[in-house]
Amino acid sequence: MTFTFGKDFKMQVYGESHGEGIGVIVEGFPLGLVIDISMIQLDLDRRRPGSGHLVSSRSEKDQVSVRSGIFNGKSTGAPIAMTIPNIDVDSSSYEEYRSTPRPGHADYTARIKYDENNDYRGGGFFSGRMTAAFVMAGSLAKQALENQRVRVFAHVVQIGQISAKQDISLQEIEKNVYCNSVRCADTKSVSDMETEITKAKELGDSVGGIIECRIVGVPVGIGEPIFDSVESVISHAMFSIPGVKGIEFGSGFRGSSKRGSENNDSPIIIDGEIQWSKNDAGGVLGGITNGAPIVIRVAFKPTASIAKEQRTIDLVKMEETSIQIKGRHDPCIVPRAVPVVEGMAAAVIVDLFKRSGKLD
Amino acid sequence: MTFTFGKDFKMQVYGESHGEGIGVIVEGFPLGLVIDISMIQLDLDRRRPGSGHLVSSRSEKDQVSVRSGIFNGKSTGAPIAMTIPNIDVDSSSYEEYRSTPRPGHADYTARIKYDENNDYRGGGFFSGRMTAAFVMAGSLAKQALENQRVRVFAHVVQIGQISAKQDISLQEIEKNVYCNSVRCADTKSVSDMETEITKAKELGDSVGGIIECRIVGVPVGIGEPIFDSVESVISHAMFSIPGVKGIEFGSGFRGSSKRGSENNDSPIIIDGEIQWSKNDAGGVLGGITNGAPIVIRVAFKPTASIAKEQRTIDLVKMEETSIQIKGRHDPCIVPRAVPVVEGMAAAVIVDLFKRSGKLD
Amino acid sequence: MTFTFGKDFKMQVYGESHGEGIGVIVEGFPLGLVIDISMIQLDLDRRRPGSGHLVSSRSEKDQVSVRSGIFNGKSTGAPIAMTIPNIDVDSSSYEEYRSTPRPGHADYTARIKYDENNDYRGGGFFSGRMTAAFVMAGSLAKQALENQRVRVFAHVVQIGQISAKQDISLQEIEKNVYCNSVRCADTKSVSDMETEITKAKELGDSVGGIIECRIVGVPVGIGEPIFDSVESVISHAMFSIPGVKGIEFGSGFRGSSKRGSENNDSPIIIDGEIQWSKNDAGGVLGGITNGAPIVIRVAFKPTASIAKEQRTIDLVKMEETSIQIKGRHDPCIVPRAVPVVEGMAAAVIVDLFKRSGKLD
Amino acid sequence: MTFTFGKDFKMQVYGESHGEGIGVIVEGFPLGLVIDISMIQLDLDRRRPGSGHLVSSRSEKDQVSVRSGIFNGKSTGAPIAMTIPNIDVDSSSYEEYRSTPRPGHADYTARIKYDENNDYRGGGFFSGRMTAAFVMAGSLAKQALENQRVRVFAHVVQIGQISAKQDISLQEIEKNVYCNSVRCADTKSVSDMETEITKAKELGDSVGGIIECRIVGVPVGIGEPIFDSVESVISHAMFSIPGVKGIEFGSGFRGSSKRGSENNDSPIIIDGEIQWSKNDAGGVLGGITNGAPIVIRVAFKPTASIAKEQRTIDLVKMEETSIQIKGRHDPCIVPRAVPVVEGMAAAVIVDLFKRSGKLD
Repeated sequence: MTFTFGKDFKMQVYGESHGEGIGVIVEGFPLGLVIDISMIQLDLDRRRPGSGHLVSSRSEKDQVSVRSGIFNGKSTGAPIAMTIPNIDVDSSSYEEYRSTPRPGHADYTARIKYDENNDYRGGGFFSGRMTAAFVMAGSLAKQALENQRVRVFAHVVQIGQISAKQDISLQEIEKNVYCNSVRCADTKSVSDMETEITKAKELGDSVGGIIECRIVGVPVGIGEPIFDSVESVISHAMFSIPGVKGIEFGSGFRGSSKRGSENNDSPIIIDGEIQWSKNDAGGVLGGITNGAPIVIRVAFKPTASIAKEQRTIDLVKMEETSIQIKGRHDPCIVPRAVPVVEGMAAAVIVDLFKRSGKLD
Repeated sequence: MTFTFGKDFKMQVYGESHGEGIGVIVEGFPLGLVIDISMIQLDLDRRRPGSGHLVSSRSEKDQVSVRSGIFNGKSTGAPIAMTIPNIDVDSSSYEEYRSTPRPGHADYTARIKYDENNDYRGGGFFSGRMTAAFVMAGSLAKQALENQRVRVFAHVVQIGQISAKQDISLQEIEKNVYCNSVRCADTKSVSDMETEITKAKELGDSVGGIIECRIVGVPVGIGEPIFDSVESVISHAMFSIPGVKGIEFGSGFRGSSKRGSENNDSPIIIDGEIQWSKNDAGGVLGGITNGAPIVIRVAFKPTASIAKEQRTIDLVKMEETSIQIKGRHDPCIVPRAVPVVEGMAAAVIVDLFKRSGKLD
Repeated sequence: MTFTFGKDFKMQVYGESHGEGIGVIVEGFPLGLVIDISMIQLDLDRRRPGSGHLVSSRSEKDQVSVRSGIFNGKSTGAPIAMTIPNIDVDSSSYEEYRSTPRPGHADYTARIKYDENNDYRGGGFFSGRMTAAFVMAGSLAKQALENQRVRVFAHVVQIGQISAKQDISLQEIEKNVYCNSVRCADTKSVSDMETEITKAKELGDSVGGIIECRIVGVPVGIGEPIFDSVESVISHAMFSIPGVKGIEFGSGFRGSSKRGSENNDSPIIIDGEIQWSKNDAGGVLGGITNGAPIVIRVAFKPTASIAKEQRTIDLVKMEETSIQIKGRHDPCIVPRAVPVVEGMAAAVIVDLFKRSGKLD
Repeated sequence: MTFTFGKDFKMQVYGESHGEGIGVIVEGFPLGLVIDISMIQLDLDRRRPGSGHLVSSRSEKDQVSVRSGIFNGKSTGAPIAMTIPNIDVDSSSYEEYRSTPRPGHADYTARIKYDENNDYRGGGFFSGRMTAAFVMAGSLAKQALENQRVRVFAHVVQIGQISAKQDISLQEIEKNVYCNSVRCADTKSVSDMETEITKAKELGDSVGGIIECRIVGVPVGIGEPIFDSVESVISHAMFSIPGVKGIEFGSGFRGSSKRGSENNDSPIIIDGEIQWSKNDAGGVLGGITNGAPIVIRVAFKPTASIAKEQRTIDLVKMEETSIQIKGRHDPCIVPRAVPVVEGMAAAVIVDLFKRSGKLD
């Protein structure tokens, strides 16, 4: 197991879905910054299941408590410990999944790897609930970045088979994302996406989707190739989010079928400043930022927990059987993952800023 | 800069494209294994530019020399240092690129980040030549894995707009990949892919492509979530390869538009053993291997260096200009990257084996 | 700042002397072990200031709370988060030390390094109170070691100018150490040591001392030279304890004046088992344990905080002045450091056990 | 095994005493510095056995070859690979030590830990020859420090029972150390020390000693407590040198018997600058440099390899026997260790400079 991520800006997470609570220690936060704890709370609220029909009905009140590292309202540079308690947990249905693993879940792999010792209640540390810790650390990271005029914008661009329009502007993202339940910046696609989720839910099924994340304002020169290229470290972070199965930067997979003359971006000069003709590189050349926005697309699989009957096996009897998963599950976790993607992106960028000597 | 990768199985690379040579120190190689140096040489040869029209005409003779860590033909557990010299280098054209950065290249980002101090000759450490070091380390890793009955199969599934058939068998991969210049296991697609490259070359252009990699024989239980999931560590490794802009596991991006009931794989029992109904998970659940082959698809952008005239800027005069890149450049680097992808995948898996206590 | 220690068994500490509390996250604790939380509490109590005249009168009630990583009374392998609150803090006198640094303290170095942002109250993270976090992690480590039949015995062998007898037996250590206020196993020296402390206190002064630590039952083969020799990693840990200024293993400094023929230990055979003629190596040869007890001596400087008037400077006026330190301070912190030394030794040994593949 | 040391300035060593050669890769060297390779060669020569009667007669010609990381005479920031070949090796006597371990050596512990796979020839990687790699990396580090006006002075203060005078000045160290065979700055003690070594040699015996190291010019504020205090990281480095069994900073062990009022150093103002009344802290307060010279004393045990007959055991027959060690061995390795101590100290300080943001 590995619960620590980052080199110069590090997060150490702990906790279980149905244990005492969830926490994170951020080590390497720059000292002397004014910290607004209400912004952390806001990001946690954005990750929380809503009250509507599109998300699970577990009423998590994720009230952040900061335990260290802040003095007179400012960061001291020492570790910042943050914690949220677990309340309203119901572990009753999980005993069953130990012997009849849920398809698409870690039930089977965790059991083989950790034997009897895994805290399987609520999925233990495999639960999406752990991402609340990512959000707390990431929210702090965003505050450090704002000081550097760097901003992170994530938004849903696909839910199931419904895609948002291309060419969404930053203004649209900023204005719309947190104003609708699917976290989509293209207001015309919102109701189709909602329907996509509702339909799946009615069938006891689920859908996946794609989140795009843009990091704007990063100066030229961030990234530590060969091995800690911007893409390497961001992808490492993103694949730590449960359900992520793909990532691409700039033209990504699409770029593979293009010619070099099409895919290469040319530097140009506008008002005496170097800019780029377009951004197929996704803001990264040779693993180092080129000043254009970093553009990332993250693919989430459909939620593994579905009400529909599925085939599985009984590990004790070693025979095939079927399972119907009970309890509260999101038919689509993608909207809730938006602040998680934002937070992890921010955490990586702060780390790379520090490593390039641009943040103490 | 970061030239070290891995935790319990580590590679430290060094060298520059036009310096003395390229080297790698492998730390954490299991002790007591018989090492076949000719296999390392074979992998280096597979990465070498061929003599044909599809690859660059630089005649690299990458003769590996092992400097430490092997005694009486077996690994001692101490670092294994391997090196290849640089010969036949021509650095004449690179001075120019410092002030007129090549589109799609690190010329500009490296100059801003490292100022005057970068060894820009031949691209310095941004050169694809550094991947020879990955291949040496990865080839060693493959030898460690074969001892565990794990095998790694990479093959080209797309070149430009030409895709290989779906459903290629392991047997086809094993038999065909290194018998054609495009490293494609689908023999019917080979000539189309060759044509795709030739056409681009004739136009002074280049093409990208996709490599699939399957890792077969990995037992259930490898991977260190939360943060060092199989996907996190493999993607970290793959994005260290120059030109990679996307990665997906199993159904990947395609899976995002599917329903949970379609995408979930069910465990089944065949001949008393647990297997999977299909492999949309790409062999990984909850960041841990589930016993099915790990299936990875890696997207490469088209080669940035093309003969065709391109727009760029003159950094000294701060004005727009154009550039025509001279010298020897592959119109498609994807075929040469096959042993690189294999090697990096193998290195990660050895690391994760060690971290799970299954390899000393 | 660095608040994380260890590689495969890691502790991440946080907190400040006069903040909300102190905490530690232990990552890498072996899974499946029964955890006795009362033993952690006992070690915390042993570190707590007593009620007598020999220690400070701050009444810390260090009640441990375990937040994660234990399920059904056993470790799950996931991070174990432990915390104690700060109560009864009085930060009034610390404002003054910012401009008139206390001799022997970090007041000056911290101010220069961290500027205005340091949480100076109670010494912030430089406070000996942080060692409560070491004790919690170390106490867990001792439980893992007992499973391996390894035991750690620390005891005071010198207070100021009073030394305990040589050749103290393990039985004496086990029986006596925690039965007297100076944590000395040589009962005949106890009252002299107590007097040494009392005398210093009466003069508004302080004394230092030496703690010996023996780790018994470690098998041959623990330690990771070249760079992570047993001595390297233990010394790294010990110098993290405030006040430590020297360390030696086996014959240590004394051995430097000896001949090789005197200092070399010979292996011998007793009852068919390999043992050693004596233990000048302190249980370590070539950085690797040789099966004999690991014997460490750790030198503590006298407590820097003394009531006696001392010369210092006024950083604002940039002139020399004098200072009299108020508040509750131990005239000798050495006895309280005994469980801290034990804990840090245990933490290192668990880490090295894991790294040698002898503990999962 | 661990062959890598350092965080932001890292050395990765490789090689064996009787293999192809010894090498080191330095990662994290600041870019843009002029490198003088002849200074590296000079330090290697200082570590080389002399021709006299005081050191072993192995004629090592340690000719450094730099393989990467330097371009136009300056560091590029990329890894600097350096190597020296092994010549004139005679491995004949080492086979015997596998079954009859030499007292004081790693023969036994290495055999148990690494079984059949250890390259035991010449002691393999346990050989003091590995310290040539430390010297190469450390010599580079010294060049980086000189740029910061930091200098490192190591000198022998004790050989066997002969101690140099106290209060040796920096001028004496600089002038005398490398002008006599025992590397002692106190010219009056040189011949006594030489005699101490000669006597031991004549008896087929050996002696140990103590090296003091002073690091001068380090600004206030270097060091990363809690866990990477200056003392922690330096001690970690020093215990990686074969034969080291003790270390102390400032008043060290002596300080343990002093009163706080004696041991505390007071800040004073001289010519408007903050200095210290004396330096019992050894230049470090709270794990952070205070501007005074860092003063370290490192205790070396007597050379384990002696000609004199010693008791040991036969591991195959499992019976006690005796051994007479043949071959070329230094009766005292302390003088040769002087550039090694200097180099390791320098490497740590560069690392800590970088980590404090004072060196890119």
